Amino acid sequence: MRVLGVDPGMALLGYGVVEGGEPLRALSFGVVSTPAHLPVERRLVVLHDELAQLLEHWQPDVVALEQLFFARNVTTALAVGQARGIVLLLCGQRTIPVVEYTPAQVKQAVGGYGRARKREMQEMVRLLLRLPVLPQPDDAADALALAVCYFQYSRAAQLERFT
Amino acid sequence: MRVLGVDPGMALLGYGVVEGGEPLRALSFGVVSTPAHLPVERRLVVLHDELAQLLEHWQPDVVALEQLFFARNVTTALAVGQARGIVLLLCGQRTIPVVEYTPAQVKQAVGGYGRARKREMQEMVRLLLRLPVLPQPDDAADALALAVCYFQYSRAAQLERFT
Repeated sequence: MRVLGVDPGMALLGYGVVEGGEPLRALSFGVVSTPAHLPVERRLVVLHDELAQLLEHWQPDVVALEQLFFARNVTTALAVGQARGIVLLLCGQRTIPVVEYTPAQVKQAVGGYGRARKREMQEMVRLLLRLPVLPQPDDAADALALAVCYFQYSRAAQLERFT
Repeated sequence: MRVLGVDPGMALLGYGVVEGGEPLRALSFGVVSTPAHLPVERRLVVLHDELAQLLEHWQPDVVALEQLFFARNVTTALAVGQARGIVLLLCGQRTIPVVEYTPAQVKQAVGGYGRARKREMQEMVRLLLRLPVLPQPDDAADALALAVCYFQYSRAAQLERFT
């Protein structure tokens, strides 16, 4: 089972590929960045093409996204929405299932409680994935957390089935 | 010169194709709707495929979009952003220039003043395009107004050049 976590954004899109098992393994993580001087439609083409290559290369079974209810403001929500639309389109075209988690769900599943701080989350992601250092940049760490979140929830669901 | 106006939305995406000349001509207008029961990634694929066909069929020189600064709320902005991302991606992939107008600019250019009401706008669009009835539904009328806006502004720019 392989999960691609994605933290969509126009300037930086974070991604993290996690393979299931004991322990979980981070196969790859990083960011796709788009040049600020390009018009938005060109930046979306860059995001689209890079993400298409990641999907092609890693063949994830599931894509995990943050369920964004709140953004700093409407302009941010619109920009994130545009990048998110590209991620969702690519999944829809390949019939890759998309799961969404609220920030609180990610913090609960990965950090152990709903109000874990960013640094604590990154440390937990590092421990769970046995990474030698904290995953960087933040966008990639967030994407890894989303992918880990998927496995934490499916593990919890399995445990429940046996109790 | 042919302009495609687009009013992006997830449930209904309005479009209107206007050909330049005296008078302007509405070649086609309508809406693309996506079934509410489908997951969002499938709905975006429907939008993508229908819009790709419209671009293929009508071969517009320019796509006109509303510059959305304000939305009812962040959730709406996110949903509109997702649909908008698809429109922008398709334009970027085909290197079709995108022009954006604020709602006030559209009202000014089409309705004659910045606070024209929706019904007045639709009546002006009808007159300018010599349509026998008011364009319907609203999303299609808004898309036609965006396309008309492009011609009104380029006409104004030409007049300025000669005075």
